[in-house]
Amino acid sequence: MFFLFLSTNLIMTLKDFKNTKSRRKYLENQLAIELEDIKKALIHSEKEITIENLIGETTLPLGVAGPIKIQNSKLEIRNYYIPLATTEGALVASVNRGCKAINQSGGTKVFLEKIGTTRGPVYETKNLEKGFWFLNWLKKNENLIKQIAEKTSSHLKYLKFEGKVIGHYTFIRFYFDTKDAMGMNMVTFATEAINKLIKEKTGINCFAISSNYCVDKKPSWLNFIFGRGVSLWAEAVIKKEAVKEILKTSAQEIFKVWLAKNIIGSSISGSLGFNAHFSNIVAAFFAATGQDLAHVVEGSIGITTTKIENNGDLYFSIYLPSLMIGLIGGGTKLSIKQEAIKIIGAKNKEELAIVLGGAILAGELSLLASLAEGSLAKAHKKLGRTNK
Amino acid sequence: MFFLFLSTNLIMTLKDFKNTKSRRKYLENQLAIELEDIKKALIHSEKEITIENLIGETTLPLGVAGPIKIQNSKLEIRNYYIPLATTEGALVASVNRGCKAINQSGGTKVFLEKIGTTRGPVYETKNLEKGFWFLNWLKKNENLIKQIAEKTSSHLKYLKFEGKVIGHYTFIRFYFDTKDAMGMNMVTFATEAINKLIKEKTGINCFAISSNYCVDKKPSWLNFIFGRGVSLWAEAVIKKEAVKEILKTSAQEIFKVWLAKNIIGSSISGSLGFNAHFSNIVAAFFAATGQDLAHVVEGSIGITTTKIENNGDLYFSIYLPSLMIGLIGGGTKLSIKQEAIKIIGAKNKEELAIVLGGAILAGELSLLASLAEGSLAKAHKKLGRTNK
Amino acid sequence: MFFLFLSTNLIMTLKDFKNTKSRRKYLENQLAIELEDIKKALIHSEKEITIENLIGETTLPLGVAGPIKIQNSKLEIRNYYIPLATTEGALVASVNRGCKAINQSGGTKVFLEKIGTTRGPVYETKNLEKGFWFLNWLKKNENLIKQIAEKTSSHLKYLKFEGKVIGHYTFIRFYFDTKDAMGMNMVTFATEAINKLIKEKTGINCFAISSNYCVDKKPSWLNFIFGRGVSLWAEAVIKKEAVKEILKTSAQEIFKVWLAKNIIGSSISGSLGFNAHFSNIVAAFFAATGQDLAHVVEGSIGITTTKIENNGDLYFSIYLPSLMIGLIGGGTKLSIKQEAIKIIGAKNKEELAIVLGGAILAGELSLLASLAEGSLAKAHKKLGRTNK
Amino acid sequence: MFFLFLSTNLIMTLKDFKNTKSRRKYLENQLAIELEDIKKALIHSEKEITIENLIGETTLPLGVAGPIKIQNSKLEIRNYYIPLATTEGALVASVNRGCKAINQSGGTKVFLEKIGTTRGPVYETKNLEKGFWFLNWLKKNENLIKQIAEKTSSHLKYLKFEGKVIGHYTFIRFYFDTKDAMGMNMVTFATEAINKLIKEKTGINCFAISSNYCVDKKPSWLNFIFGRGVSLWAEAVIKKEAVKEILKTSAQEIFKVWLAKNIIGSSISGSLGFNAHFSNIVAAFFAATGQDLAHVVEGSIGITTTKIENNGDLYFSIYLPSLMIGLIGGGTKLSIKQEAIKIIGAKNKEELAIVLGGAILAGELSLLASLAEGSLAKAHKKLGRTNK
Repeated sequence: MFFLFLSTNLIMTLKDFKNTKSRRKYLENQLAIELEDIKKALIHSEKEITIENLIGETTLPLGVAGPIKIQNSKLEIRNYYIPLATTEGALVASVNRGCKAINQSGGTKVFLEKIGTTRGPVYETKNLEKGFWFLNWLKKNENLIKQIAEKTSSHLKYLKFEGKVIGHYTFIRFYFDTKDAMGMNMVTFATEAINKLIKEKTGINCFAISSNYCVDKKPSWLNFIFGRGVSLWAEAVIKKEAVKEILKTSAQEIFKVWLAKNIIGSSISGSLGFNAHFSNIVAAFFAATGQDLAHVVEGSIGITTTKIENNGDLYFSIYLPSLMIGLIGGGTKLSIKQEAIKIIGAKNKEELAIVLGGAILAGELSLLASLAEGSLAKAHKKLGRTNK
Repeated sequence: MFFLFLSTNLIMTLKDFKNTKSRRKYLENQLAIELEDIKKALIHSEKEITIENLIGETTLPLGVAGPIKIQNSKLEIRNYYIPLATTEGALVASVNRGCKAINQSGGTKVFLEKIGTTRGPVYETKNLEKGFWFLNWLKKNENLIKQIAEKTSSHLKYLKFEGKVIGHYTFIRFYFDTKDAMGMNMVTFATEAINKLIKEKTGINCFAISSNYCVDKKPSWLNFIFGRGVSLWAEAVIKKEAVKEILKTSAQEIFKVWLAKNIIGSSISGSLGFNAHFSNIVAAFFAATGQDLAHVVEGSIGITTTKIENNGDLYFSIYLPSLMIGLIGGGTKLSIKQEAIKIIGAKNKEELAIVLGGAILAGELSLLASLAEGSLAKAHKKLGRTNK
Repeated sequence: MFFLFLSTNLIMTLKDFKNTKSRRKYLENQLAIELEDIKKALIHSEKEITIENLIGETTLPLGVAGPIKIQNSKLEIRNYYIPLATTEGALVASVNRGCKAINQSGGTKVFLEKIGTTRGPVYETKNLEKGFWFLNWLKKNENLIKQIAEKTSSHLKYLKFEGKVIGHYTFIRFYFDTKDAMGMNMVTFATEAINKLIKEKTGINCFAISSNYCVDKKPSWLNFIFGRGVSLWAEAVIKKEAVKEILKTSAQEIFKVWLAKNIIGSSISGSLGFNAHFSNIVAAFFAATGQDLAHVVEGSIGITTTKIENNGDLYFSIYLPSLMIGLIGGGTKLSIKQEAIKIIGAKNKEELAIVLGGAILAGELSLLASLAEGSLAKAHKKLGRTNK
Repeated sequence: MFFLFLSTNLIMTLKDFKNTKSRRKYLENQLAIELEDIKKALIHSEKEITIENLIGETTLPLGVAGPIKIQNSKLEIRNYYIPLATTEGALVASVNRGCKAINQSGGTKVFLEKIGTTRGPVYETKNLEKGFWFLNWLKKNENLIKQIAEKTSSHLKYLKFEGKVIGHYTFIRFYFDTKDAMGMNMVTFATEAINKLIKEKTGINCFAISSNYCVDKKPSWLNFIFGRGVSLWAEAVIKKEAVKEILKTSAQEIFKVWLAKNIIGSSISGSLGFNAHFSNIVAAFFAATGQDLAHVVEGSIGITTTKIENNGDLYFSIYLPSLMIGLIGGGTKLSIKQEAIKIIGAKNKEELAIVLGGAILAGELSLLASLAEGSLAKAHKKLGRTNK
């Protein structure tokens, strides 16, 4: 076998190579493979790319759903296209169908609350008294903390902190407004500066600048309850005609499936996702627009609610407490991601999130309708295996 | 504003366009934007791509970490490169550093249990008696169910079911071996066939073929406890010299950070992720190899454990109960994903998962070391903003 | 202040006293208080009582609800009185009202599954390989384990085990049938014997005979999903006339409150109790019949489901996955608890549990009706402050 | 069979009886049983007792542990006896042993935060806009709400509210200071008054005055994260000599068991109780002092932390976020409960809670030591089956 001869001691380290090409070439030779597509897909200049041991790029098919008619909390109404990068057949079609039903019902209203990007360091406070003293010190010195934090970036505003003393640990959760950036790096640097201040003024050590009290990229009730990044709500009253004609089912059937699946099914499974498939739309939207894909985790948390209106229409609503998203920084810097953002036409982080909110509403509605109608398997058979 | 004039009634539906090019052109004209990169990144033929309303492809930078020395449960030892697609600076470098420390300590042992791909339909059973009767019927007719299910695909083996009667609902979780495929579509078709059989033989209706008792793409204790897809374990005893020289810290410091962050921090946050950042590595590996990105959610669940050995070495171990992964089908069909799989050299789904297990171990070790050393912010400053 | 003079060094230890009386007297003198009621309430002989540092007994008011008409899974129908010990006004009246509505609707059907009493030790297995080897060893030696375990008590049957390898830990959950006893002590002794065997045969040490993988007296998803002790289901179709006349509301209103409170409310609160107040009835029934009051915790877990039948009746159902209860042993040995058990007329543990199932159904129904009607505060004002 | 003849139609309703005696007599005759102990245990006058269908009282053995030396946050040091009502042999002895080890190490420090008693109604707000409008209305009218609420009782202070809009539901969590009472009835009445005000001023209906967003008597992450009632912390540094001589083990062994059981074991079980047995002590203390026994559920939630100090001593600490307790009202009104409170000598709710905090610390320490030493089974054999 080939790999048996690949000794870790003899081979060169990939980071020793000067450039992408030589690194890729080395791999091709070493492994006797060809990486033609990966080479071909390298459409950005190396200067644009933030990664180590670069060998090229990989791709994801990009489809577009919508437009979807969205009214934001300032009562502005706009139509948005939704770029979705996915390899799951039927997903774009599903969101698209949801958009159609929503549009025909007058559009969706989307609401957003800026919770802030959080970083949760844990400090070594030798006993409870010291922990409570430290909480108090933080409260008293919050202005100073704010100043220190905000010096680290002109784009960052310190918002608040929450704290919990647990034995000899003190967990703090700092909240920051990171403007149009998702901002995890920004808040790490700010927290580092705060930690330095704390160390100087109090002698208290930070065990770890990130303590899973953030909570970053792990599912958690803390994020469900407190929110993180932005919290998103979207709703629409789907006209009974649209339910019938576009979604091929009835409000009653969707209500029944929603209750059985999203609510009872999730309850007995110990789930934090009382929804049908938020994460599908979040993942595809994130991949298209350059978000951090590990943040799909937070985007899977939340709840869908429905109600049958007296006139037979379907009230349909979603809530995502904890969405981490940005318009600038990170992967959004890649020109190809900027193109996707231009398809949306979002001028700030909030608008970007709002469009995602509408997309999730559409996708959620369409899947529940499909389950109610019994056509899920059919759709995947048609769209998942063949090509359009 | 432009969008105010975009009426949903007047505009064409994107799916009315005959091909990718005309669809993209229409968008470019409509929105007065250019989608050059998205066009350029379309490296696959439309026949290869399973998506609706295709307009091109989007890209993700691809780096390679490793090699990492892995011993599987059959005691075979191999070295693997790890392709990672990400826009998060420092991630590849971090996994790489972890690999180095692991290799220098003799490599990692990775274990895998095939749990099976699950689909969890919910049935309408009018009362408890009917529900229990139905569970019994399923037990008695399991051979028939197996036959019917396995007729839907030559790649699928029926494994077992679990059931729960809740009032007038009966939730069933069918487990299937889907060979080298992740297999969600496959198990949906199999379950559809089972439902047809059930309906014919018992008259019992399926409310929804997927009831969140699957649990697909939502975080849940059910998946943590029962597992889903494959369950993965990896471990290494990191020599104290490697901890010192490569990771720039000590076993004691890593243990302390692990306890404060992964364990106590996650406990008080109501998290299902008692780990530092499984999801980061899962997301990058999934994007590189064509997995379903919404399955990053399941990959964020699990626990890391550490122990300081008597001789001062660091025992380090991870457990992921619920990893959904495939070598064939879905996004892996794209030629560019096959190239990444060739970099790994995985010959089946299990081997692919095992390499991911090693990569997660490496990434987890490196991040905890970085937190212990206090260099996290530093690394992100260096690698997250500039280019290498 | 008096207590400032109470030095721990000077005072006698309560266990040094020869009998209950002298111990109580000492306390009365030391603290200058009178413990007349505690003395008066000591109605059992000291021989009957299993407690250390006994000074007397304390009391709880005992009321009786019902009778309630219950059909078990063998289709036997009986009427049962329900003794409830509580200091919460309105609780007995509430259960009573529920019984009335249930009886008028033909009674309740209660189902029970014996899961078994579990003990979950954790073992030190130095690495994953050892852990998996140990799991395998347990499987191969299960007959021997069964023999050893069953030697410790003629009332105990070994059922099965489940195991989880986590790094250098192996968690095992042994299930035992403890006949009519709740059986925690019994399974501890059996597990101790098993551990001795394991140590002898494999050299593997037990870290702790109880590892919170039991899970005893703590809320947990493990118990929700696997069940523990007995799992209980109860249901009734409440006639719309009974809903109107006895419960003073409608099926629609109860459904709405159930959905808003038990299901949506619990979902967004990260609760394991998708019910209105299982624990109230469990606590009162446990106190009356001599159960371990810390097991109220497990009894708070579970879900209530409802449906509006086509004819306007209300389908109402409960599920408790994890109820720890006994007819013999522990507190049930006290003669006063046997009197309560005689009120019920339960001949075995299962029958006792079944009556509790009916009582919970009644209490749950009545409270949801009260909330729907808006009379909760009223009832507590009337029954919680005055005397009947 | 006797019960087959017990027709629900023919028998009298227990509430039709004029007094306790005739009711008990009727049951004795009907069921052909004797309720001598229940009669004998009726030591309170019927006027004192708040229950319906009273037939007597039931008893629980009462033991006393301690004294334990406690320092509160005002640095006052006192010694307290701990009355515990339980039928679990070894529990009092275990707490007692813990007290001894704590006292010999200088006592425990206990800290308390008054979170407030909460009631969480859910309102019908027809859409998101209305929900957000309502949240805003509540904020603007908080003073008025405060006035209205505080009119319902001179013992109640309105503190704050938290709210969550979920589709057409608005969940509100009102926090009240209920002085020395546990206060659930009090806050229900206050919330009823608030609801009346809301209805008058806004027309908004309350679906249910209690929505499981309280969260009362169900385990929930909401209560873990926000706290409820009072939050309690206790700690002690157990001298290594005390660990050795009294607890018969070492700090290292206790740390290992704590990590394996309380932390890793609870983590992989989806538990909210990262402790060994908080609920045991809470239940026994609650039964002794007249608390609501269903509140044992909240008392089972929380975390124990330990650390090995540099000098080999054991730092030991507990945290209970959500303890519902009262000194007046409810069951505490019974004279026999007042006697237990006098044993403690608590002058207010906080002091009562603080003593419970110390007791839990002692019980937790002792059990973990017992598990570390391997004597758990032994202790239960000795104390659980024989008499002292």
